[in-house]
Amino acid sequence: MFRNAMPRYEILSEDAMSTLDAGWRRLVSEIGVEFGSARALELFRQAGQKVEDSDGQGVVRFDPDFVLEQVAKAPRSFDVQARNPANTVHIGDDAMAFGAVYGPPFVREGDVRRDATMDDFRNFTRLAQGFAVLDSAGGVVCEPEDTPLDSRHLDMTYALQTLTDKIYMGNVVSGANAADTIAMTEILFGGRPAIEATPATISLINCNSPLRWDERMLEAQLAYSEANQAVVITPFLLMGAMSPVSIPAALTQQIAEALTGIALSQLVRPGCPVIFGSFLSNIDMQSGSPCFGTPESAVGLLCTGQIARRFGLPVRSGGGLTSSQTADAQAGYESLMTMLPTFLAGINWVMHSAGWLEAGLVASYEKFVLDVQLLEMLQHEFRPLEIDEASLAFDAHDEVRHGGHFLGAAHTMERFRTCFYRPFVNSSENYERWVRNGAKDAAARARDVARKRLDEYEPPPLDDAVREELTEYVTRRRRELGD
Amino acid sequence: MFRNAMPRYEILSEDAMSTLDAGWRRLVSEIGVEFGSARALELFRQAGQKVEDSDGQGVVRFDPDFVLEQVAKAPRSFDVQARNPANTVHIGDDAMAFGAVYGPPFVREGDVRRDATMDDFRNFTRLAQGFAVLDSAGGVVCEPEDTPLDSRHLDMTYALQTLTDKIYMGNVVSGANAADTIAMTEILFGGRPAIEATPATISLINCNSPLRWDERMLEAQLAYSEANQAVVITPFLLMGAMSPVSIPAALTQQIAEALTGIALSQLVRPGCPVIFGSFLSNIDMQSGSPCFGTPESAVGLLCTGQIARRFGLPVRSGGGLTSSQTADAQAGYESLMTMLPTFLAGINWVMHSAGWLEAGLVASYEKFVLDVQLLEMLQHEFRPLEIDEASLAFDAHDEVRHGGHFLGAAHTMERFRTCFYRPFVNSSENYERWVRNGAKDAAARARDVARKRLDEYEPPPLDDAVREELTEYVTRRRRELGD
Repeated sequence: MFRNAMPRYEILSEDAMSTLDAGWRRLVSEIGVEFGSARALELFRQAGQKVEDSDGQGVVRFDPDFVLEQVAKAPRSFDVQARNPANTVHIGDDAMAFGAVYGPPFVREGDVRRDATMDDFRNFTRLAQGFAVLDSAGGVVCEPEDTPLDSRHLDMTYALQTLTDKIYMGNVVSGANAADTIAMTEILFGGRPAIEATPATISLINCNSPLRWDERMLEAQLAYSEANQAVVITPFLLMGAMSPVSIPAALTQQIAEALTGIALSQLVRPGCPVIFGSFLSNIDMQSGSPCFGTPESAVGLLCTGQIARRFGLPVRSGGGLTSSQTADAQAGYESLMTMLPTFLAGINWVMHSAGWLEAGLVASYEKFVLDVQLLEMLQHEFRPLEIDEASLAFDAHDEVRHGGHFLGAAHTMERFRTCFYRPFVNSSENYERWVRNGAKDAAARARDVARKRLDEYEPPPLDDAVREELTEYVTRRRRELGD
Repeated sequence: MFRNAMPRYEILSEDAMSTLDAGWRRLVSEIGVEFGSARALELFRQAGQKVEDSDGQGVVRFDPDFVLEQVAKAPRSFDVQARNPANTVHIGDDAMAFGAVYGPPFVREGDVRRDATMDDFRNFTRLAQGFAVLDSAGGVVCEPEDTPLDSRHLDMTYALQTLTDKIYMGNVVSGANAADTIAMTEILFGGRPAIEATPATISLINCNSPLRWDERMLEAQLAYSEANQAVVITPFLLMGAMSPVSIPAALTQQIAEALTGIALSQLVRPGCPVIFGSFLSNIDMQSGSPCFGTPESAVGLLCTGQIARRFGLPVRSGGGLTSSQTADAQAGYESLMTMLPTFLAGINWVMHSAGWLEAGLVASYEKFVLDVQLLEMLQHEFRPLEIDEASLAFDAHDEVRHGGHFLGAAHTMERFRTCFYRPFVNSSENYERWVRNGAKDAAARARDVARKRLDEYEPPPLDDAVREELTEYVTRRRRELGD
């Protein structure tokens, strides 16, 4: 997997850090955080925090030092195992892991935008399996609208388990869905002890920001943390709507929400794997539409990496985010406007790395391939440069001399196959050749690549007995759920 | 103008710097640098350097410390005056100045790609005048193929002087063309002393890399440096063709070429304004085509900023570069793949900031506007974040509380107009609205903006007597040149 050994780009001074620190402490202690779970409230009450609740919903006012004590129990880094051990992922330190887009109800291919289907879900999962640069298909690669709602999570989990041998994300719609994901993961990995020893899923727990954790997400969080499965505790902040319109205010809110959510997991199972989550952008203040790839989100992202490191936590943020409706120039630069800071900030778990379009409402085949291209470029870019005497190629200069060219130099001939990153979608063809080849823009070429990859897809091997057991589980549970 | 007060992203260790330092010293002393100018060779000979020449062409083997002595005479920063003093530009320190694309023989608008004309040249110049984020239209905004070659520089310079009141670049095709540019600049700024006191042009001196400075460029360089006009001494390095295929080798070559060119200017006029230039990318090793927005070019760019600072020189590099044939997703992310490192590296003079397409062969109206959009986003992003108690918006949290929204909060109402950057091409419209508005992609919307801006263009005021004197000069010189 990719390790980012380049320097981190940090823009917060010590003074700024202190101000943010005072900010989240004040928020959690004076305003407090609301939790929609009787069990969570009871855990916090027993731990000595001030809880005002009724009917399993209530506000907790925290001692900030208590929060930090809980957070300190979380591991700085951990592994998430894949059924193919070569695809096991390290979360934290200088490791960066990448998953595909998560959650879109629609799909776009070319000029057609339509409801996502289970076929699309499987196709995106197959694409994720085929590109080495992706560590995971993610979880809800798209929302398969043609499958029954109550049992959909079984179909998605089964597809993620069988069509890829990479890590996958757990379902978080409810505690019951989380239990199903865990049960299916036990089947795939050979029992509960195996997945408690090394987590085999990552699950996304979103805050109902500002400062509220909802019941169903909490149920899922508690189930996963009890089973020692990784959770990404993620404030969901579109500045202007779910947080104030200033970046520092959003950052303090993000710390308050993330750390209190993480504290809950550590109360449930001290030492369980957690990730400091961030989903931070802004709305258009005229229309209220969410905007992505904005300057404000990039600044927030750089700060987020630095802040999470300060708390000694792995961090999730970034991705290839855009508001654009198609895989056009805006989609290209907005995605990189988020993805390049993702690398500069050393983000450990990067969701939405491939396929995101139209503010996350659309999973796009073209965009998926273009994002993979971008990821490859960035992984190439963020490799430390080796500079030693040999790298200076003095002999090549001695051979070529003044005004010559290096095309046929010995130094070049020895290295020409591997010296530069070779893109598979980007074109540098001259105009005449490009026209002869159909004058296709990047999106059209990416569509061709996606189709070719899907044609060539081969499923990774899976033990027949395991497949059968998974199928039986899905069939039984589907019946129980009435679908 | 824009000042980049954010931290620089530096990736070269002290050890790496020392290795590069030893590298360029060895190159200039053992291989030497070729100069195609009897005057240049004589200046170096008189200064004690080893010169082997015949017929005004020869190799100079340098004492590296002599080179550094000359380089030390160059100013760390300087102003370039515009005829509208509000548009005067500072070159160096944390200032960043941006000029449009330079040199394309072709123009693209929509699906039409054709020879560039003088009308296009004027149009791009008008666009540059209209966008505050651009400090200059640059120089050869496109190559007007419908005007006579010998007097073309007069038409271009006249257009740059009259259609904008921003700084402009000088013509470098020959010493005679440089003399014309200087004469016309004297007319515009009120005489030779005025432009010697503060330079009024920047001119691009390209190396015929590897390690050769050609006669005509040198003539132009000497003319400009004698007149105390700024020159950008630029190694022209497409790795694999004009330099070895390793980045460190390209960097040492770049230092060797830039510093020896700068030393020449300082011999001609000690203290004259110079810029450490860089044009560094790589070719596709299969086709030989130049590639832009590559990982290798981004790494080279980050190193270049750090290296130029080490020598105490303002630096030119970066831009919105792409190999793409159209203003598509590839054009979007490749341009940002260069432009974001341009900001991270704190580049002082940024050519090709708007309009570059197809490896620099095409000036594109759509791309021009999209690049301006990107520049605005980046200038917004690279502003230091103010973090103080007030920025934390505690009162807003106190007002909104848990699970509410900030749309109508007092803190939001006070700031909603200016809190976020507002794009003028990017769309975050919801799908239905976007379809109602014509389902235009970013390139189509950018084309609309370009046309609207050209319709709305108003020329900046210019004294009639000055205009007449410029016209007379152009008419006379055109006659003398036989066009």
